[in-house]
Amino acid sequence: MIYDQPQALRLAVRDGNFRQPTSGHAGGYLQANLMIVPEADAFDFLLFCQRNPKPCPLIEVLEPGATEPRCAPGANIATDVPGYRVYRHGDLAGERESVADLWQKDFVTFLIGCSFSFEAAVQQAGVPLRHVRQGRNVAMYRTNIACTPAGRFSGEMVVSMRPVKSRDVAKVVEISGRFDVAHGTPVHIGNPGAIGIVDIARPDYGDAVDIEADEVPVFWACGVTPQWVAQKCRLPLCITHAPGKMFVTDLRG
Amino acid sequence: MIYDQPQALRLAVRDGNFRQPTSGHAGGYLQANLMIVPEADAFDFLLFCQRNPKPCPLIEVLEPGATEPRCAPGANIATDVPGYRVYRHGDLAGERESVADLWQKDFVTFLIGCSFSFEAAVQQAGVPLRHVRQGRNVAMYRTNIACTPAGRFSGEMVVSMRPVKSRDVAKVVEISGRFDVAHGTPVHIGNPGAIGIVDIARPDYGDAVDIEADEVPVFWACGVTPQWVAQKCRLPLCITHAPGKMFVTDLRG
Repeated sequence: MIYDQPQALRLAVRDGNFRQPTSGHAGGYLQANLMIVPEADAFDFLLFCQRNPKPCPLIEVLEPGATEPRCAPGANIATDVPGYRVYRHGDLAGERESVADLWQKDFVTFLIGCSFSFEAAVQQAGVPLRHVRQGRNVAMYRTNIACTPAGRFSGEMVVSMRPVKSRDVAKVVEISGRFDVAHGTPVHIGNPGAIGIVDIARPDYGDAVDIEADEVPVFWACGVTPQWVAQKCRLPLCITHAPGKMFVTDLRG
Repeated sequence: MIYDQPQALRLAVRDGNFRQPTSGHAGGYLQANLMIVPEADAFDFLLFCQRNPKPCPLIEVLEPGATEPRCAPGANIATDVPGYRVYRHGDLAGERESVADLWQKDFVTFLIGCSFSFEAAVQQAGVPLRHVRQGRNVAMYRTNIACTPAGRFSGEMVVSMRPVKSRDVAKVVEISGRFDVAHGTPVHIGNPGAIGIVDIARPDYGDAVDIEADEVPVFWACGVTPQWVAQKCRLPLCITHAPGKMFVTDLRG
């Protein structure tokens, strides 16, 4: 079953009836990467997002302790995401279906844009995306592109890659550039080795996808970057969404 | 004497040889509104800026205690602004030529875009600006437009007003829209009463300017907003620039 409306999707999640990736649901609505940190780390992380808007375009930051975002009235951040990951001191400490029992009054929630919005626009413009057609997760890679550090947060950018036909590369740059909150224009086009990607056939996250002879690999900043940086910095505690299982907002993408 | 280069201007300020408004100097370089708050209020204020990007477009936020911005290597935030204002619990506690002696290790500096960048572009497009031609400060007004609150920060937007000939209004909207970091497009056009301005001839800040018969008053979000909000919230301590005396960066506008 496909959920058209974000409210219905979030309620299904809350009631335990939806645990899948959210891609393809609530078409036309913004979906968000989730990052929750204790207030002690919130200024540093907000500053990290401000300094690195391509991987971390902010949709909304909630007040400390708050669970109901303005971008989704009635929603509960602690229960309405189909899957959560808890990291402690940089290690994955578990995957969960709710974090209501872990909730702390000092938790600050960051909702960060994801690439689904521009993917829809690119496809509407007649440019096919192989991973979408094949029903796979997009291929993601850690790179050697340094993010601008902020307080305790520093590390390299994670990128997503989509193979694009040479004739369509300018078009996808133009279209994605209209979606600041979905990472904007690509950060790199055409040469994986130049950004530290050793084997394009082996992504660090998501699923591998073939690149055909008339295609160029196009790389966009990716919302997985803060998860990777939090791991590298051995942040005492953070909670994120599980890959592909985003928070669905009421905002029109 | 007109300073063309931001470095030379900042050194003149530091040496006590420049105490004027910075408009008209270092043409083509970004100038910034200054807001300094202790770290205890920095998350709330950063969040206020994130939620209110029109009045508070961030150029840079420095690490706690830091005085040398990335946007102006070699500069010192505590000495290189031609005039500072110190506010304590919402009251103006003094105007100073340096805040080096007041500096605290927990001070967080926010550099916020100002309208000088788009004013230059508007004039280059052939639209005259009366306050610039008359050598006056722009007229600024407190409004009834509520900012989105964040933590302890809440209050109404301050706007700047420029009279524009009816035939040029669309042009100034288009041009200012290219300058996100200089407040972007206008927030209101044509009806002062609708945003709570009782007497257009009596601005709350800056200098009054005539509006002629074929002109429309055009209102932009203004970087004085955070000063007004900090006063209203009776923030224990903050330091700002004195009106018109901005921090001049090395960034090209």
